[in-house]
Amino acid sequence: MNKPTIEICLSPELLHLYALAGKIVVVTDILRATSCIVAGLATGIASITPVASLEEGRALMAQGYIGAGEREGKQVEGFHMGNSPFSYMEPHLQGKKVVTTTTNGTQAIQKSREAAQIVIGAFLNISAVAAYLKDQNRDVVVVCAGWKGKVNLEDTLFAGALARQLEGFFRWEDDAVLAASELYANMQMDLHAHISRSSHYRRLVKLGIKEDIRFCLESDRFGVVPILVDNEIVLR
Amino acid sequence: MNKPTIEICLSPELLHLYALAGKIVVVTDILRATSCIVAGLATGIASITPVASLEEGRALMAQGYIGAGEREGKQVEGFHMGNSPFSYMEPHLQGKKVVTTTTNGTQAIQKSREAAQIVIGAFLNISAVAAYLKDQNRDVVVVCAGWKGKVNLEDTLFAGALARQLEGFFRWEDDAVLAASELYANMQMDLHAHISRSSHYRRLVKLGIKEDIRFCLESDRFGVVPILVDNEIVLR
Repeated sequence: MNKPTIEICLSPELLHLYALAGKIVVVTDILRATSCIVAGLATGIASITPVASLEEGRALMAQGYIGAGEREGKQVEGFHMGNSPFSYMEPHLQGKKVVTTTTNGTQAIQKSREAAQIVIGAFLNISAVAAYLKDQNRDVVVVCAGWKGKVNLEDTLFAGALARQLEGFFRWEDDAVLAASELYANMQMDLHAHISRSSHYRRLVKLGIKEDIRFCLESDRFGVVPILVDNEIVLR
Repeated sequence: MNKPTIEICLSPELLHLYALAGKIVVVTDILRATSCIVAGLATGIASITPVASLEEGRALMAQGYIGAGEREGKQVEGFHMGNSPFSYMEPHLQGKKVVTTTTNGTQAIQKSREAAQIVIGAFLNISAVAAYLKDQNRDVVVVCAGWKGKVNLEDTLFAGALARQLEGFFRWEDDAVLAASELYANMQMDLHAHISRSSHYRRLVKLGIKEDIRFCLESDRFGVVPILVDNEIVLR
């Protein structure tokens, strides 16, 4: 029996090397875009539309969407919120449509559109995503959003953690899967300590959002699987 | 005092994200291009000219160079040798000029040319390279050749091993350094076993070159530092 394959694309800048057609892409941007999307949809947002540019974000805000805009870790002026998972969970967002644009995460989603399906993954919903992928029996590519094209630690660790959950059900195709899963195995006992040495952590801590980071590293707080349908991310 | 920085570029496809001007680039392609270059120059080859295309290789062969040509792991027809470190160490090559073109390694060298200097690194000369870099006191970027643009395990492990040798002397700039050095720390006790799970190992073993691989994973067999001068790699 031929098991489906799992590959890990460590940066959106490497996406052209991966054949996505017919596969499921899991996009991850742990700090913080996909963590926000998971938390927001799990707690009542109706849909989240990812867009690459601030202009597209403003256009949808003009149509009544709640706007989340982040660049360089900070909220963009004129948007209702930035990129904190806590802001995505506020009660007044229940049933609302949100448009979001971020430095890395939403770009990674746009670049993955030739896949058969795009799933949004984060530590917050990792086991739900793993269970879903096992059910689908399709080849998977995990796409790490990285930081401005460079490989980052937290997304690599998520990809490795997901690969480990799928071990035995999927064939490991490339060395990035080996490397990421080994890294996760060695760092999982204290993810926060390891990630606190990362470049993005230092960048974000300067912005005063330690609580965000701690929250984004929690596993399985939500049992949801967000997927992209047309231009909107919704719960399946 | 400002220490110089070390960065790791895990694939030539990410090189555009790194500023190389004024820096030293260490190019590595453990299986097998840079291992061959180190072994060949350490045992008597006068110079090795890396070229990207087979045509350039043939042009220099017409001028009397010994030609090494490899694609997809195999020797290219019409070239004197392929990409085995043992063929680079044969006595009849003493004092000869060699031209080499390979699937990944020579491409990575060509793409790194805006650096102030290009150094050739492999496990075979890792401590000599580390000592040289400490002397230079310049920012360093380790460029992993990878496999057709994808990240591979053996080059990542070399980059991590080199970063560990430089710890305390260089500032670690990006997450790739954290990830690669942590991986090396966890795998160093049995490099061969870990690398035998890698994609490239399986590819090469099919070609019957287990001995090559074992040789390329030996540390510090040679105390040489090959550098690129104009178009030739020579010992400094």
